[in-house]
Amino acid sequence: MQADNTQQPERKSLDERNKMTDLERIRHSCAHVLATAILRIWPEAQFAAGPPVENGFYYDVELSHRISPEDFTKIEEEMKKEVKANNTFEKVVVPREQALEDARKGRLAALVERGTPSKFKLDIVENIPENEPISYYKNGDFIDLCAGPHVMRTGNIGAFKLTHVASAYYKGDERNPQLQRIYGTAFKNKTEMEAYFKMLEEARKRDHRKIGKEMELFTFDEDVGPGLPLWLPNGGAMIEELEKLAKETEFAAGYERVRTPHLARENMYKTSGHLPYYAESMFPPMELKELNSKGEVESLERYYLKSMNCPHHHKIFKAVPHSYRDLPLRLAEYGTCYRYEQSGELMGLMRVRAMQMNDAHIYCTPEQFAEEFRAVNEMYLKYFKIFGFEKYQMRFSTHDPARLGQKFVDEPELWKQTEDMVRRVLIESNINYVEVPNEAAFYGPKIDVQVWSISGREFTIATNQVDFAVPKRFGLVYRDRDNQEKTPLCIHRAPLGTHERFLGFLIEHYAGNFPLWLAPEQVRVMTIGDDENLVRYASAIRDELRGQMVRATLDGSSDKINGKVLQAEESKVHTMLVIGPRDMEAGNVSVRLHGKGNIGAKPKNEVIAQIFEDIKTRK
Amino acid sequence: MQADNTQQPERKSLDERNKMTDLERIRHSCAHVLATAILRIWPEAQFAAGPPVENGFYYDVELSHRISPEDFTKIEEEMKKEVKANNTFEKVVVPREQALEDARKGRLAALVERGTPSKFKLDIVENIPENEPISYYKNGDFIDLCAGPHVMRTGNIGAFKLTHVASAYYKGDERNPQLQRIYGTAFKNKTEMEAYFKMLEEARKRDHRKIGKEMELFTFDEDVGPGLPLWLPNGGAMIEELEKLAKETEFAAGYERVRTPHLARENMYKTSGHLPYYAESMFPPMELKELNSKGEVESLERYYLKSMNCPHHHKIFKAVPHSYRDLPLRLAEYGTCYRYEQSGELMGLMRVRAMQMNDAHIYCTPEQFAEEFRAVNEMYLKYFKIFGFEKYQMRFSTHDPARLGQKFVDEPELWKQTEDMVRRVLIESNINYVEVPNEAAFYGPKIDVQVWSISGREFTIATNQVDFAVPKRFGLVYRDRDNQEKTPLCIHRAPLGTHERFLGFLIEHYAGNFPLWLAPEQVRVMTIGDDENLVRYASAIRDELRGQMVRATLDGSSDKINGKVLQAEESKVHTMLVIGPRDMEAGNVSVRLHGKGNIGAKPKNEVIAQIFEDIKTRK
Repeated sequence: MQADNTQQPERKSLDERNKMTDLERIRHSCAHVLATAILRIWPEAQFAAGPPVENGFYYDVELSHRISPEDFTKIEEEMKKEVKANNTFEKVVVPREQALEDARKGRLAALVERGTPSKFKLDIVENIPENEPISYYKNGDFIDLCAGPHVMRTGNIGAFKLTHVASAYYKGDERNPQLQRIYGTAFKNKTEMEAYFKMLEEARKRDHRKIGKEMELFTFDEDVGPGLPLWLPNGGAMIEELEKLAKETEFAAGYERVRTPHLARENMYKTSGHLPYYAESMFPPMELKELNSKGEVESLERYYLKSMNCPHHHKIFKAVPHSYRDLPLRLAEYGTCYRYEQSGELMGLMRVRAMQMNDAHIYCTPEQFAEEFRAVNEMYLKYFKIFGFEKYQMRFSTHDPARLGQKFVDEPELWKQTEDMVRRVLIESNINYVEVPNEAAFYGPKIDVQVWSISGREFTIATNQVDFAVPKRFGLVYRDRDNQEKTPLCIHRAPLGTHERFLGFLIEHYAGNFPLWLAPEQVRVMTIGDDENLVRYASAIRDELRGQMVRATLDGSSDKINGKVLQAEESKVHTMLVIGPRDMEAGNVSVRLHGKGNIGAKPKNEVIAQIFEDIKTRK
Repeated sequence: MQADNTQQPERKSLDERNKMTDLERIRHSCAHVLATAILRIWPEAQFAAGPPVENGFYYDVELSHRISPEDFTKIEEEMKKEVKANNTFEKVVVPREQALEDARKGRLAALVERGTPSKFKLDIVENIPENEPISYYKNGDFIDLCAGPHVMRTGNIGAFKLTHVASAYYKGDERNPQLQRIYGTAFKNKTEMEAYFKMLEEARKRDHRKIGKEMELFTFDEDVGPGLPLWLPNGGAMIEELEKLAKETEFAAGYERVRTPHLARENMYKTSGHLPYYAESMFPPMELKELNSKGEVESLERYYLKSMNCPHHHKIFKAVPHSYRDLPLRLAEYGTCYRYEQSGELMGLMRVRAMQMNDAHIYCTPEQFAEEFRAVNEMYLKYFKIFGFEKYQMRFSTHDPARLGQKFVDEPELWKQTEDMVRRVLIESNINYVEVPNEAAFYGPKIDVQVWSISGREFTIATNQVDFAVPKRFGLVYRDRDNQEKTPLCIHRAPLGTHERFLGFLIEHYAGNFPLWLAPEQVRVMTIGDDENLVRYASAIRDELRGQMVRATLDGSSDKINGKVLQAEESKVHTMLVIGPRDMEAGNVSVRLHGKGNIGAKPKNEVIAQIFEDIKTRK
């Protein structure tokens, strides 16, 4: 059972606020400086919340003037003055009555007492529980209701920048007034801020939606539906390569491939427990009328698109009797699953409704478990190496014994046993992991695998789960040495996640400059001029490459070679073979690699052999 | 747009009856002999229709005695007497009034005038149109209302046999009386009849459902649903091989692979014309609630499972602009389609609801059409060779100019042009075909490809269609040399049909004795005894084979070698490598082929190289 990772919540909880990092203190303080500056320009501004958030901060403000990016310079000028003034952030704990009084008089989130109430702050004070202390933070004339913490002085804000403005309802409730949310970011110094904006710019360049469009990898279509990608030939070629990799790797590891339909009857999902508990994440059912011989409706059957492959695989396990000798049985399938995500949550390939999953289920005895689990981890590490993921972490989620029978299936022995085994394997395999209590799946411990791209983006590939509950629900058994029927353990695993998310990540990881084996167009043979003999020589090279399933094309047109090269570079063709009359005579080709330029003329056969070798070894 | 072939109608139309073959005349005559015999035993029997059908004949009879196979010998004895009597089949044309009179008196389908009316015959006479002649056929005392034709004498029926009995409503209408339908078959001579029953027996042995179960190729599960096969590892391996074949073949032929989801919005199927015209063959829709940011239902969208891949491929064509230089564009996908077949019509893999289709759509200019169409035919022929289909026929269905704008899209020029091109290609390629007027698809001419298995079973692989209407509906265009936007022609093709039907056919074609490349278990290495060194030697051979993705296993148990071989033969393992101490010392293996026995000891490396070669070339 594989789950997509959820999006980062935008706003930190109070609990997290108490553990603020240095950077978060700077940003939180900068929000106060922002409010100070806005009040200097628009003294009537009313402020609501102004927290630090991921990568920056914001402050919500009510103001008749519509703040736009054109106002940012003016606001930033005032902010700079406040930073330069280097005022102390002074904390004052006040009695509740004083806070209410100040809010009513308009002295909170204000430079002076304004007469009109600080209405949002008043509401906030009124909602602070009786037993909680109330505090202000002051910088210069500015006083704000605030729990802190902050930096010592405004001068500690090394560098800052306003970034954008959005609208937001007070407390996120549409029945409340709509406010302007001014976003900014702040850093310890200018160097760090510049690095951040450079990283942002890089991320924009690497955005898989942008590259996906430029390279014609995938598309969406209104008539097909949101979240349902159509893979164009270039993306299709990459999918084929990923599946080839998975099939070779899984064959070597003793997996067997199965195929299952994309739907099943309601009853299956009652057995699996998807219904009713997971129903909201599934597509709605199809109501199929089964007719009798007279053409009358005999029964009405509900069919559901599968959101996971496990129930189908369990049925395959069950289709033939098994003895302990058949185990471990490793059933693999690139099964497409369908999940209903709300349209507002869909995002490029990262959050979709159709998922081609690198799925497999390993059925094994308890004695085989550790070895199987170790092998799965090794497969992960093997893939990391191929894709150049140098930084990774496994999050090992365990159960909470106090919640057995509620959040966790009531099998204390199996929990202990499998968690011990998993932990031992992780340690013995020298794997970088953290243990997270109380976050296991209902039916067993799980591991979320996180990797970081070249550009530092974090990504949860997939989860790797132990399941000792569902096989029992499906009545799966094997006959053991002692002739007793026993329920197998099941490992759910999907090291390459789904094509959608994984390719989305790979596009950003490589910025579209894929390694040879994965590149949609692997080789383009280009002639200098369109001389007949030259084109024939070039065609033969292309044909030799294509004979071994290399995605090679030929540009034998009369266009200038510089134009041909430029076009190939723009298309991110991995290897360009440029051929002029002198190359032909010498039996050579001039090799050019995308983004790396010319690497010189070499014998034709040597180059072709090298291409075959690099593809085979996925260099 | 690929359609499954429909089942043979059980009863011949009148039109076909006039073109009866010799064998059909014999069988039709034998039906009369059957009625004669039944009347000798049960004089009160009332007969309805008694036509020849595929592989035999039947006669529908109303009789209080419930005829069972135990009665067959007795009936056949009476039939033999009638055949031995060698009575002439005498045709008498009678006036309508006489026919009505005879029917009322019970003289039709009778040996004597019985007093009670020949009620079904009376009804049949009453329904014969006024202008049609009415005739009797007599043999001995038996007179039947019959249009003929028949053989000369009852003695011309060389051999016959009653086969089974079923029930049927008069005229197929459940409001009419239920009759007993007695089935039999007849041949020119005993030899031919024996060959037929031997063929039937062979077909039973080759039944893909039986072999599929024995070899653990596929299964069905009540919770998944009827008509939705689950492919077990052995079947999964064969699917992978077929796809590998298709991918290699299509890559070489310049196809590009795409991936599309298994569903789309209602609107797409309105554009394609599937809705409402094809709705009955589609799964019912899923009603998806799209929510707005407030969590309220903003719209209700209907999604349908795809019953064909073309609309999705058209959308991929449309996703990027095309010039004539991009054409032909050949988009291929093993797309799974879902069609609603009534549960009573489902049959093993031959009629299913989930179809993994070897689909592709070729978009081309009119100038490119002939060459593309020729190449598609060549691909068919190439596949026929690989699978050893020696007999095939293409049915070329054309339009009827009189029905343009009704049954056929109103494009007289395009019909003429494409049909001429198709015909020319068929003739030039020296392809065995028949032309069938008035059976084209709505949007263009089509070709149904029929092949015959080793055991003589006929099978429609797939249809190959020209489409000059739907691309226009989808607004597909390319920019031509003259800078005008034009609509491409589209060829729908699926030479390997669907995995379900094609594998169903292949199982019967090969009787489960698949060639090496296709066999689920390709090689089993078996040791004579379980000596450690021997097992190590055998494992190394298995590993070398598996290193090249050969599905090889090892039986290194202490079981007797005869038992091991027997087990491998039963599992239809293609190649068995038996290894004893002497083989090991000589660096040899003893090779045994399934069903062919021992072919002797050979050097290990030679055998391994041969296996690689045979798989690669699909020998």
